[in-house]
Amino acid sequence: MSPKITVELLRQLRQAMKNSKYITEPIQAYIIPSGDAHQSEYIAPCDCRREFICGFNGSAGTAIVTEQHAALWTDGRYFLQASQQMDNNWTLMKMGLKETPSQEDWLVSILPENSKVGVDPWIIAADQWKNMSKALSSAGHSLVAVQDNLIDTIWEDRPAPPSTKLITLGLKYTGLTWQDKVTALRGKMAERKISWFVVTALDEIAWLFNLRGSDIEYNPVFFAYAIIGISNIKLFVDSKRLLDPAVQEHLELDSPSKPELTIQCFPYESVYTELQAVCAALAPKEKMWICDKASCALTQVIPKSHRSVIPYTPLCLAKAVKNPTEIQAMKMAHIKDAVALCELFAWLEKEIPKGTVTEISVADKAEELRSQQRDFVGLSFPTISSVGPNGAIIHYRPLPETNRTLSLNEVYLIDSGAQYLDGTTDVTRTVHFGTPTDYEKECFTYVLKGHIAVSAAVFPNGTKGHLLDSFARAALWDSGLDYLHGTGHGVGCFLNVHEGPCGISYKTFADEPLEAGMIVSDEPGYYEDGSFGIRIENVVLVIPAKTKYNYRNRGSLTFEPLTLVPIQLKMINTDLLTQKEHDWVNDYHKKCRETIGAELERQGRKEALDWLIRETQPIV
Amino acid sequence: MSPKITVELLRQLRQAMKNSKYITEPIQAYIIPSGDAHQSEYIAPCDCRREFICGFNGSAGTAIVTEQHAALWTDGRYFLQASQQMDNNWTLMKMGLKETPSQEDWLVSILPENSKVGVDPWIIAADQWKNMSKALSSAGHSLVAVQDNLIDTIWEDRPAPPSTKLITLGLKYTGLTWQDKVTALRGKMAERKISWFVVTALDEIAWLFNLRGSDIEYNPVFFAYAIIGISNIKLFVDSKRLLDPAVQEHLELDSPSKPELTIQCFPYESVYTELQAVCAALAPKEKMWICDKASCALTQVIPKSHRSVIPYTPLCLAKAVKNPTEIQAMKMAHIKDAVALCELFAWLEKEIPKGTVTEISVADKAEELRSQQRDFVGLSFPTISSVGPNGAIIHYRPLPETNRTLSLNEVYLIDSGAQYLDGTTDVTRTVHFGTPTDYEKECFTYVLKGHIAVSAAVFPNGTKGHLLDSFARAALWDSGLDYLHGTGHGVGCFLNVHEGPCGISYKTFADEPLEAGMIVSDEPGYYEDGSFGIRIENVVLVIPAKTKYNYRNRGSLTFEPLTLVPIQLKMINTDLLTQKEHDWVNDYHKKCRETIGAELERQGRKEALDWLIRETQPIV
Repeated sequence: MSPKITVELLRQLRQAMKNSKYITEPIQAYIIPSGDAHQSEYIAPCDCRREFICGFNGSAGTAIVTEQHAALWTDGRYFLQASQQMDNNWTLMKMGLKETPSQEDWLVSILPENSKVGVDPWIIAADQWKNMSKALSSAGHSLVAVQDNLIDTIWEDRPAPPSTKLITLGLKYTGLTWQDKVTALRGKMAERKISWFVVTALDEIAWLFNLRGSDIEYNPVFFAYAIIGISNIKLFVDSKRLLDPAVQEHLELDSPSKPELTIQCFPYESVYTELQAVCAALAPKEKMWICDKASCALTQVIPKSHRSVIPYTPLCLAKAVKNPTEIQAMKMAHIKDAVALCELFAWLEKEIPKGTVTEISVADKAEELRSQQRDFVGLSFPTISSVGPNGAIIHYRPLPETNRTLSLNEVYLIDSGAQYLDGTTDVTRTVHFGTPTDYEKECFTYVLKGHIAVSAAVFPNGTKGHLLDSFARAALWDSGLDYLHGTGHGVGCFLNVHEGPCGISYKTFADEPLEAGMIVSDEPGYYEDGSFGIRIENVVLVIPAKTKYNYRNRGSLTFEPLTLVPIQLKMINTDLLTQKEHDWVNDYHKKCRETIGAELERQGRKEALDWLIRETQPIV
Repeated sequence: MSPKITVELLRQLRQAMKNSKYITEPIQAYIIPSGDAHQSEYIAPCDCRREFICGFNGSAGTAIVTEQHAALWTDGRYFLQASQQMDNNWTLMKMGLKETPSQEDWLVSILPENSKVGVDPWIIAADQWKNMSKALSSAGHSLVAVQDNLIDTIWEDRPAPPSTKLITLGLKYTGLTWQDKVTALRGKMAERKISWFVVTALDEIAWLFNLRGSDIEYNPVFFAYAIIGISNIKLFVDSKRLLDPAVQEHLELDSPSKPELTIQCFPYESVYTELQAVCAALAPKEKMWICDKASCALTQVIPKSHRSVIPYTPLCLAKAVKNPTEIQAMKMAHIKDAVALCELFAWLEKEIPKGTVTEISVADKAEELRSQQRDFVGLSFPTISSVGPNGAIIHYRPLPETNRTLSLNEVYLIDSGAQYLDGTTDVTRTVHFGTPTDYEKECFTYVLKGHIAVSAAVFPNGTKGHLLDSFARAALWDSGLDYLHGTGHGVGCFLNVHEGPCGISYKTFADEPLEAGMIVSDEPGYYEDGSFGIRIENVVLVIPAKTKYNYRNRGSLTFEPLTLVPIQLKMINTDLLTQKEHDWVNDYHKKCRETIGAELERQGRKEALDWLIRETQPIV
């Protein structure tokens, strides 16, 4: 991987930072966040401004350019990748390490007195704006909103914003009509005496209206805003997309069943002026919800006295707790996904000795096999297919110039997932096709112990996911090892593969408590730079747990794995397992064999079935 | 325990809330925090205003009185106690339960429009003021500072503020002179370009000047403020206390060694005007540190442009990491404390069958035995001595009306500790003098497993204590059990038994990372209302851990128990222990036998030695 050459781009950006065409006074620093106007994690090509300016294309990172410096902040998953993709003009700021300054501290340490720091108010969240603005002000600087995005002014061939065809989802997949969801939302609003709610997160809008799109690769969402009132529904979306009769019918655009369920449609761009109009007509005591992750630009339209900023919206919470229809659909999606992966591993065993299988060809083969499954829509994120040292790049994505051949001598890690109409999958398996070293097996076994510790954890109702994070690390910590990423994230149902408000990570404290019906990933790992990477990831469903006692009648929860793909026995040092862990592995493999075996049989995939039966033999 | 009758007091307070002698406009609610002007956890009798008004005398709780309502917020340790000590005029607000409103939400839900809520600005911390004020304003109310404390206006026999004799501590105990500590502090100030630091926490002042007092029972501190400049030291303390020649010499009041180490002494009350004077003379860019837990009154003296509010002061951090002298001194204090407890348990075994030993008499006996040890100063908190159902009251303190007799049929829990010149102790043991039931043993063993899980945990440098909290609960959670308090707190060295900035609790996120030299408690428990309480508490020292590998050269940490008192074997169901836990118990008891045994022998305490040897036999 060769770094992007950024000398000329930085020169142009620094000129723009002084150009009175865009700004009244020169700015001394410009912040380029990685998000779009909806603070999406994955973004459309037209929004990849941070990648454009520095070359780093990971999913998280913020660039800051000053007159003298250019720096990029990203987290442990991306240290290696970022250092490879950026040229010498850039300083990599490794977040999470003690010696790394925060963006605020760094700016304060290098800026001349009374500096102005610019940012596009549409792509910075209101809470981030507030924190940054406060830190800068207290050091005598100021944060200023630059209306023209300065990257766009120097980005000559910037792609056009997408406007893909919308998919309507029926009750079979969603379990609830959009009308029911709007009504439930209004109930929550009424409870809190809220008259309006500005919906800005793309997955919340998609979930609310039972619509999907493909504006952003891997995430079945579409660019839109919504403003929901107690008796109004305003949807802001490219009007061409509403010409589709299926969409018209789904949204009851011509013949709404009830007046309060009538959707008023507006062009996407008019959200700003329409929100201004709604705000202008507010009665003195009316309150409007907006998420603290909404853009600064939109948040500031709402007068402070009417603004109620919330960390998680009721849609985010409702979406996170899957209903029985969604749970069944997610289970079906995971069965199909496991079928594809069993086929993949059976195929790999045959093909690898030929020496022609590469990281990229496995990723392609995995996609091909998944695409044969019913209701396949696409991948849920770029497949991480990595051999040996590439496995240590936590969010590695194989490129022609980094592509390695799979062999009998190196550890292979594949983290992949798909979108099906019935659900979203995300699974990581780490395997060896020859004989793993004792050290590789030892590390794998610690990671497995961590995976099991979370998956089998029993905890009281009301427990937040971050309290489970250390369970995943204890076995690694005992030996002086660790991994620099969280342990799990929420997973959408045919929606974003990363979603809030729950997760399992030491980095957060403000996650919402886990509830039965929530779905998260369980994915501890271990990475040895230059050698190998190990990760074992299942998607797991939060379910009630039966316990011997029931303290204060709180009830307990645990997890049920939805992912049912064998964990390679060859990689396990069974001497390191406790009896409980031993039993967990056997029970898990029994479930894989029974559930996926039945589906493989139904689909007539004999070779994969043989492989599955072989790989799920009990350990003794 | 009969509740305090509060009808008349509430009537008087409500009158004061409307009395123009104290306030310009009537207030609709009055907040009575539990702290003093230094936000101390334990307080002097003159500051027990919350207890005076509602009767509840636990260490944490806030009362709010409105025209119609009176409510008290406290945490899980005190639910039972508070409900017993308060009469029907009071509503108990159980913090930590989902259905319990916050103080802010409750006020907003019950106050008439445009209400004024009053509070004494000296006994509310600046950060609490800010949060409360913000919440009230956003609902149309306001928080107002009431300069005359309204409780004091109705408290006829309020005790006078204490002014006890000061104790000077030499290098033998402190390891560092106060001059060295001031110099190190100034180094930290210079690093951050801070010219002044207002020290408001009593334990920080005591630690900095190597002085102790006894103004507050159990906490060897004295009422004082300090303002430290780069070349000034201003100490605010009752001037009578400085007449003692030992104190004069210790502080070099007559002959300071260096001009910048000259202490200027002021009366305690003049801190407000003196801080005003310092602030008036500040140069434009000068910054002044003050802790966010300092009083609102004092914080607001510092103009915003000069104010740098910090969550943990450099003194708090420096004090938490014990130096080698302090560590040795703490070890010695714990050895002496264990001697006293071994004697106590040996005595109990003989005495209990007589049927005359009560919760109070054990507490008295424990104090008597501790007082026989060298350098004993007093207790470090009121002894929790509790039989059977009283053990379920987490911070129970035996009173004549609740006093139970120890018997062969009930579980007995004793949580006690002392102040010695060389250190502070805090230890809990739960024992049975007859035959515990299988259920009691089962619960005890889960608590023990949690205790060991924390004590034996290995974790990377930089880990915050809250990440270890779930380790203490896992065994309980597995069976549907839990406890409603944190797992550990920082412990001072001949200072407060509870100190920041580290601890082990699911409730915090802003704790500072654990470091070698820090000292915390490890005290999981289980409480069955109406039946029994179990807690196993050791004070443990953070030490470097040797691990097989060393990921990214971060190094690892673990704990070394300082408390060396046998854990009753009779209470353990050894079938529930893993081999590792089994070995931990035997290793721990071996260390108790060797270390405490030697000291018992040295002190010629034969009966206790016999008891120790018997109680530390290896389990098989």
